[in-house]
Amino acid sequence: MTDRIAQTDVVVIGAGPVGLFAVFELGMLKLRCHVIDSLDRPGGQCAALYPEKPIYDIPAYPRILAGELVERLLAQAAPFEPIYHLGQQATALTGRDDGRWSVETSAGTEIAAHAVVIAAGAGAFGPNRPPLEGIERFEGAGPGVGVHYMVRRRDDFRGRTLVIAGGGDSALDWAISLAGVAKKIYLVHRRPRFRGAPETVSQMEALARPGGPIEKVVPYQLYGLKGGEGGLGGVVVATLQGETRTLECDALLPFFGLSANLGPIADWGLELEKHRVTVEPASCQTSVPGIFAIGDIVHYDRKLKLILTGFAEAASAAHAIHPLARSGEELHWEYSTTRGVPGAV
Amino acid sequence: MTDRIAQTDVVVIGAGPVGLFAVFELGMLKLRCHVIDSLDRPGGQCAALYPEKPIYDIPAYPRILAGELVERLLAQAAPFEPIYHLGQQATALTGRDDGRWSVETSAGTEIAAHAVVIAAGAGAFGPNRPPLEGIERFEGAGPGVGVHYMVRRRDDFRGRTLVIAGGGDSALDWAISLAGVAKKIYLVHRRPRFRGAPETVSQMEALARPGGPIEKVVPYQLYGLKGGEGGLGGVVVATLQGETRTLECDALLPFFGLSANLGPIADWGLELEKHRVTVEPASCQTSVPGIFAIGDIVHYDRKLKLILTGFAEAASAAHAIHPLARSGEELHWEYSTTRGVPGAV
Repeated sequence: MTDRIAQTDVVVIGAGPVGLFAVFELGMLKLRCHVIDSLDRPGGQCAALYPEKPIYDIPAYPRILAGELVERLLAQAAPFEPIYHLGQQATALTGRDDGRWSVETSAGTEIAAHAVVIAAGAGAFGPNRPPLEGIERFEGAGPGVGVHYMVRRRDDFRGRTLVIAGGGDSALDWAISLAGVAKKIYLVHRRPRFRGAPETVSQMEALARPGGPIEKVVPYQLYGLKGGEGGLGGVVVATLQGETRTLECDALLPFFGLSANLGPIADWGLELEKHRVTVEPASCQTSVPGIFAIGDIVHYDRKLKLILTGFAEAASAAHAIHPLARSGEELHWEYSTTRGVPGAV
Repeated sequence: MTDRIAQTDVVVIGAGPVGLFAVFELGMLKLRCHVIDSLDRPGGQCAALYPEKPIYDIPAYPRILAGELVERLLAQAAPFEPIYHLGQQATALTGRDDGRWSVETSAGTEIAAHAVVIAAGAGAFGPNRPPLEGIERFEGAGPGVGVHYMVRRRDDFRGRTLVIAGGGDSALDWAISLAGVAKKIYLVHRRPRFRGAPETVSQMEALARPGGPIEKVVPYQLYGLKGGEGGLGGVVVATLQGETRTLECDALLPFFGLSANLGPIADWGLELEKHRVTVEPASCQTSVPGIFAIGDIVHYDRKLKLILTGFAEAASAAHAIHPLARSGEELHWEYSTTRGVPGAV
């Protein structure tokens, strides 16, 4: 089986801005990288959540869009030919007999390396699950029925009665879109007013006219689920005053945004504080020698959660990793330099 | 006299890349800055020594010229309207009775501030002075005579006999240029071969033909100066074997490059190590509360002399300074943000 394990110098977990810049800094020290990310493209939140958001505090960029920042970091890392493993989560970290580390992913990839750099930001992203008892029983129930956090095929919901929950653009957009195929849509929000774009809110209100396909259920919160072996039967909603109402339905679609959690990293035996990985700031080494962490996922005294700070931590980690990966070789280079980039002119 | 003292939040000493980015980071926290630099324009070494050198390790810039980096950092700092005091050196740092600090410059400017950020890089730049006894007596002797480290007006040297010392491009370029006006030029270099661009060396060799305006004096080193109250009379040069020769001349122009030193900063009572200012790395505060240092001038364990690292230190220092300058105000902002830049859209 050994020949199926990829070999590299460093595994970088997280392909957000800080992980990408770590590839560059490690590359400048002639260290090769594999990069793992749970999203299906590089860039982390910048690419997935707000590619068109302008950022003003990247040095020497008075203004740059998040998506453009990612493009430029990818281009800067490219000469070092990192291997990306996207759409898969780093699941296991194991010490090897030869003193190196092995990282496994949810896709069954296994990579052996001298060091691991965790640049996982806020962690792996997933939809916020409402705190309803037994909700997991109805997840994955099948197309058009049960609980769904995203719409893969609009047509799955044809002729169904749906409860859509949430007050933002995702809930509104899907209520409007699915109103064209569903039998009926209950749109549940805990406030009377929706937070979406004015034009979107107007469209929804038109569809929520008497006799229209959408029925607004406001101000109500999700309260409970009804159903059993036969599947989801209905959703119980409640006002702040405790008045409840049961909405009979085939499916519940909660759109409460995305959030992140450390996921498997929390179980790797690294010292944590406040859901962050503790590091020694000058080297960014965690409590486990050979395992480093950089960017928003780390904790130390006076840590600033700035992209820039993560960039500098990437440089610190790279310089601390070099002697581990190249024991015996002395590192002379330290300054900002015109050398070290393959193909640079 | 008090009304003649400029008042600000923070004095930044050094207008290199790291000092300029400190203005931005302090500005994001609504702290105003005055900036002092001994050079006559912002940008530090990047602008003065190698504006056309490409740099490859600024995050999200696969390649940027040093001069362009400075332009962009100036633009990023501009919305915060820093006041620049250029062509003057910070000479004195004094604690004030009101708990603030006062910085004085070589031009007589005095600025009072809550905090001081030293971003002076390698220190203030000046020409390397050859170690010749009494050389300072002949500096500033007047146009065309005595010792000069730079040529302000070529015509000052018309009809003069000059000793130009050095083996690099500056010595060669000035020997060639002044050959057109001087009576005679002795070009002294400690090696037989010159280090200049081949084309420049060829031009000089043509002017050093028998009977030409340049006489090469190689391999000789500067050894001593002759003259007294009447001014410089000659330069004594010596071979490695100790043979000496006296070159009668009106002026000596040594071109041995620029170097930097801490200058007055070394006498401000800050804890130093290896000619660097010691700081607590998470805040970049020096041994004196209220005085911070960032960039290449600082020393701490595992310090990396990267421009990027200096940028991150600027952010750390700004966040540590905020409570000193705005005691009582809580700082909620911490993330990379689209807010805080005046006029940004």
